[in-house]
Amino acid sequence: MRTRTIDSLLRTAAAREGVISFAGGLPANETFPHKALAQASAEAAGDVGKSALQYDWPEGRLKLRELIAAKMRTRGALVGPEDIIITNGAQDSLALAVEVIGALQVQVGKVTYPGALDIFEASQCEAGTRPHSFTYVMPAVSNPLGSMMGAVERAQVLQADVIIEDDAYADLLFSGPPPRPLLADAPDKVFFVGTFSKTLAPGLRVGWLIAPKAVRAKVLALKQKHDIQACGLTQAVVERLLTSPEFEPRLQKLRAHYRQRSERLLTALSHLPNVHFSVPLGGFSVWLETEIEGSDASWLYAAIENGVAFDPGGLFRPTDDAQHPLSMRLSFSSVPMDQIEAGVARLDKALRSTRGGKLAA
Amino acid sequence: MRTRTIDSLLRTAAAREGVISFAGGLPANETFPHKALAQASAEAAGDVGKSALQYDWPEGRLKLRELIAAKMRTRGALVGPEDIIITNGAQDSLALAVEVIGALQVQVGKVTYPGALDIFEASQCEAGTRPHSFTYVMPAVSNPLGSMMGAVERAQVLQADVIIEDDAYADLLFSGPPPRPLLADAPDKVFFVGTFSKTLAPGLRVGWLIAPKAVRAKVLALKQKHDIQACGLTQAVVERLLTSPEFEPRLQKLRAHYRQRSERLLTALSHLPNVHFSVPLGGFSVWLETEIEGSDASWLYAAIENGVAFDPGGLFRPTDDAQHPLSMRLSFSSVPMDQIEAGVARLDKALRSTRGGKLAA
Repeated sequence: MRTRTIDSLLRTAAAREGVISFAGGLPANETFPHKALAQASAEAAGDVGKSALQYDWPEGRLKLRELIAAKMRTRGALVGPEDIIITNGAQDSLALAVEVIGALQVQVGKVTYPGALDIFEASQCEAGTRPHSFTYVMPAVSNPLGSMMGAVERAQVLQADVIIEDDAYADLLFSGPPPRPLLADAPDKVFFVGTFSKTLAPGLRVGWLIAPKAVRAKVLALKQKHDIQACGLTQAVVERLLTSPEFEPRLQKLRAHYRQRSERLLTALSHLPNVHFSVPLGGFSVWLETEIEGSDASWLYAAIENGVAFDPGGLFRPTDDAQHPLSMRLSFSSVPMDQIEAGVARLDKALRSTRGGKLAA
Repeated sequence: MRTRTIDSLLRTAAAREGVISFAGGLPANETFPHKALAQASAEAAGDVGKSALQYDWPEGRLKLRELIAAKMRTRGALVGPEDIIITNGAQDSLALAVEVIGALQVQVGKVTYPGALDIFEASQCEAGTRPHSFTYVMPAVSNPLGSMMGAVERAQVLQADVIIEDDAYADLLFSGPPPRPLLADAPDKVFFVGTFSKTLAPGLRVGWLIAPKAVRAKVLALKQKHDIQACGLTQAVVERLLTSPEFEPRLQKLRAHYRQRSERLLTALSHLPNVHFSVPLGGFSVWLETEIEGSDASWLYAAIENGVAFDPGGLFRPTDDAQHPLSMRLSFSSVPMDQIEAGVARLDKALRSTRGGKLAA
């Protein structure tokens, strides 16, 4: 899905001084709990007892799995530590789930997470004889729309044979606790994907996968084959942060922080003519659609020339269908708060010049 | 290769109090530089500048890649930071290399690293139409033998179309610096696999892959698809340890430490009747062969009942050929130094009772 051209443009935008970037879906640097992480890291690395520095089994550290299981039980999923497999973040969880499922066909929404599409594309190329399909969804907070799945769609999705439930943004629903996961209602067919990348820090690379019991041994064999285990040191760091009394209050602050950014972006976007955009209930981004025809690469190039960047819409579509008008994901999560209006003004300028016919096909 | 039975027996041995274990190929817990790692971790997590906590590109941190490239250049390989891809340890490097090569056939020695065999087996099952083959070798220090590749074999291996050079133990050659890698002589066809798991700590999950330039972009796309990037925090930790004046003196100490253990094990083994074993030049282990026929699982079970464990020989063979007499890898690296003789005495007892016909087929 992600072409070399788009990849190269996004790298250019990231490296260029002065570009206001709505790209990447990154948590805000200023939300990282540096002090708590520094203390936890020093403790974890210094601990000579059950060392986080030694090799471990592929499922990961017991204490962390116990903490995650307890967290999941408060949401209605009856799981224990033996059900949890620690991974290198949600992407690793997704890749493992897809490899175990081994299906040819995947059902996704009209727009969805590009990292998942990359995996599906590669998997579909390799497979070819297996008849069953699976459904990939983000019921709590979807990416890029920021929407929550309604009861009707939920009931429909639960009819699927196999489901990957990507819960990456659930803790960042702007108001209220994360909802009951599909996993709670269908543990025998749901692969549940969780991560600390959005709520703690992506550089820790700690996520988890809950697989149906029937395939758990197979997932563990794959994990061991891929890279033996997730990072022991950062698992031990996350254990310490999860047991800190600061964890829940910090989540509350994060939710308020991202809601404020979301509102600021929505207000700025409301002044743009001829665009439609999603109003997120959580997460990091707004999905915006225009009426303009053109290629993603040309459009992103034009925008970068105007000093603004974003993730172009094609990245989020399961098929490379050129018939869609230009669209994009605007992440409000990591752009400096006081640059949101200026970024939208540049976007407006880029859109106007594009409407003026300056965009190559 | 690793059957559920063997896996389960090894887990039993690891969990059972009082078992003296030569299994696992683990670095010694007492070699972990806890203090330096604690300080480096606190610094890396606390650094709000070029944050190790944020998402990164799949190739990993520039500074770490510069340090690794400089290290490789001292060994004769003309590489720069742009050639290095940071991975979750050697296993991840191997898995990426094999996926990019996509070959049906692999050439390996009679015994080799089981983690590599796991990958080859899975890869061979999936592939089926690609005609070329590749060669997997550990020229500096082989696992499980602990041998170094001679000039004749080196010249022969360099004739192969594609080579995976696993350098995991090169820094733990007991005497002298690591040798010139194959990579230095054939950069267009060598995938070079390096790791800090043996010299710093496996729980950091930091290794690297140097791929031929022609396929580098493909490797990066795969890395991003699998898990986005290696752990940022522990990459920043390794940067700090590599630039410490303590790093080289510590390597010298490690080499002496493991040589001493190796000699102690070899002395103890020299009293066993009717066995052959390798005399390692480096690394973590000795390869031992007996004249006894029987199954690996029965033999390991009998040994654990006698209070001793090891990695059974079948794990290291590319084919499940039941014709081999019992053999095993004995890792001297992590068994408590003062238990080496007692462990060998238990092994002797287990071997004697097995010769006495108590071993089920």
